[in-house]
Amino acid sequence: MTLAEVAKAAGVSMPTVSKVLNGRSDVSRVTRAKVEHLLDSHGYRRRTRTPSRSPLVELVFHELDSIWAMELIKGVAQVARANGATVVLTESGTRHTPAPEWLGGVLQRRPMGVVLVFSALPQDVKQQLRTAAIPFVVIDPAGDPDPDVPSVGSANWSGGLAATRHLTAQGHARVAIITGPEDMLCSLARLDGYRSAMAMAGLDVDPRLIRFGDFHVQGGFEQAMSLLDGPDRPTAIFAGSDLQALGVLEAARLKGLNVPRDLSVVGYDDVPLAQWSSPPLTTVHQPLRQMAEQAARMLFRQDEPGEEAQRIELATHLVVRQSTAPRPGGV
Amino acid sequence: MTLAEVAKAAGVSMPTVSKVLNGRSDVSRVTRAKVEHLLDSHGYRRRTRTPSRSPLVELVFHELDSIWAMELIKGVAQVARANGATVVLTESGTRHTPAPEWLGGVLQRRPMGVVLVFSALPQDVKQQLRTAAIPFVVIDPAGDPDPDVPSVGSANWSGGLAATRHLTAQGHARVAIITGPEDMLCSLARLDGYRSAMAMAGLDVDPRLIRFGDFHVQGGFEQAMSLLDGPDRPTAIFAGSDLQALGVLEAARLKGLNVPRDLSVVGYDDVPLAQWSSPPLTTVHQPLRQMAEQAARMLFRQDEPGEEAQRIELATHLVVRQSTAPRPGGV
Repeated sequence: MTLAEVAKAAGVSMPTVSKVLNGRSDVSRVTRAKVEHLLDSHGYRRRTRTPSRSPLVELVFHELDSIWAMELIKGVAQVARANGATVVLTESGTRHTPAPEWLGGVLQRRPMGVVLVFSALPQDVKQQLRTAAIPFVVIDPAGDPDPDVPSVGSANWSGGLAATRHLTAQGHARVAIITGPEDMLCSLARLDGYRSAMAMAGLDVDPRLIRFGDFHVQGGFEQAMSLLDGPDRPTAIFAGSDLQALGVLEAARLKGLNVPRDLSVVGYDDVPLAQWSSPPLTTVHQPLRQMAEQAARMLFRQDEPGEEAQRIELATHLVVRQSTAPRPGGV
Repeated sequence: MTLAEVAKAAGVSMPTVSKVLNGRSDVSRVTRAKVEHLLDSHGYRRRTRTPSRSPLVELVFHELDSIWAMELIKGVAQVARANGATVVLTESGTRHTPAPEWLGGVLQRRPMGVVLVFSALPQDVKQQLRTAAIPFVVIDPAGDPDPDVPSVGSANWSGGLAATRHLTAQGHARVAIITGPEDMLCSLARLDGYRSAMAMAGLDVDPRLIRFGDFHVQGGFEQAMSLLDGPDRPTAIFAGSDLQALGVLEAARLKGLNVPRDLSVVGYDDVPLAQWSSPPLTTVHQPLRQMAEQAARMLFRQDEPGEEAQRIELATHLVVRQSTAPRPGGV
């Protein structure tokens, strides 16, 4: 289908189709949607006349406050530099999708590609990036990828399994889990890994030992204060994230429990502060920097024909430090 | 002096002067230096024909690993956004100065301004940014500013004084300090603040209680292991940075000392992890985000006539959390 045919089918002029293709803002929302739908449904991408692009890679966060942000920035920056590009950093929108005004800025900046740290992208964002021929990849540590968007995540179920097996192997039978929010797939995958490890060790799971947190220090602290209250407290807690593990350490301190002598604690993420806590955290290493490098590399590969949307999950592994020990009273 | 006169004085053609002004790379290093020196010594800045600039603010770090980096990014991003600009992030060079190849990239990107996290800028970097009419400001938490460059720092001496007075006011007499590296002015300013606070409390300073660290966890840990070894150990340590304070907490744990019951610890910086440590750290708040906002605002103000290079130091203040307590045995 030629552009003239697209213009005819949409009932607009050729210059209007051009404006849509060039991401200009002086086109009505309705017309833009109609033209983009036609372009998209015919698989039109500007392969032949690639627009001049700025040597920029855009990295978009919903909030820079994330403890992950710096590792992701470093990974993208490294691959960008290797490809002669610089990193533009934008912060935008809510937890799940970028804000609409962000898109106008991207179309003007014309970066070589966009790495988004979001779990879902609205249809019109995907469409506009595609018609503007700007490659994009989602880093999705939450594990809830859009099937038609290239994305990079990590192996959450295996991580939950490894964390819990480490504890059961040291004789812990009352093992609690504080996973993340109930509406995030990564929380559920880590919880299922925990359940499988408990089953593999022949241990029953006490439903009172399963808690949902918020992936922040406060959530870990509150759930741990409740878990450690009472006589049949757990001897080990898989804390679901390093920040939640810090909250568990503080709860243990206030309860007069020594970690790891009286309570073993395993984190998740292995962000730099995991090795600086007292005691240093045993934790599941999530390869954040490599995930970001992988995402940025996928941007540059999208120019090669035959590359389709894909999902890559990088492996996680357990890092044993000093917050875990055999069960009190012997294995 | 007109550009024609500059060309004549430098013994080059007008197009060559233009090339230098436009940051083009096809001019020899010697010629560029000669032309720029002439332009600079006659105070030439392209006020009248401001070159078109990209709506970008460039933030340059020597290394993104700094625990400060995220707070600084957030501050610059906020002011950039308020001015319709986006943040470009570059990492470059050694601890003290940006690498030469970085400059070529900046001249091509033509940002609205550059915020550098460095203590010193080489003369030719300053000259090239000035002739290209790209405003720049240095964020210099190390406290060692170049007099002819606008910069933002914070009040290190007052911070050291406040940290130490908090300890002496609680009856501590054997107060140790682990300050930063001996070659950084901020380390010396914090140490002098400590000395003044000790003198104000009528206390002698035992020179064995003064240590120089590296501002990282390991330095704090090693110095604390040595300080806490022996019978006349200090009852309080001003740790010089939050990371060093984390190292002190770990040393205390290994020595079987309870913080704050047996040992009080004060950090410096108040980065987010200070409130997540166990116990949460009493620390000196360094307003990193505000420093970055201030630096970014100064960029936009440099277009206003009459603005000259200036140094701004923002105030620090003590935040009391749970790592400090009255001296064992009573005040």
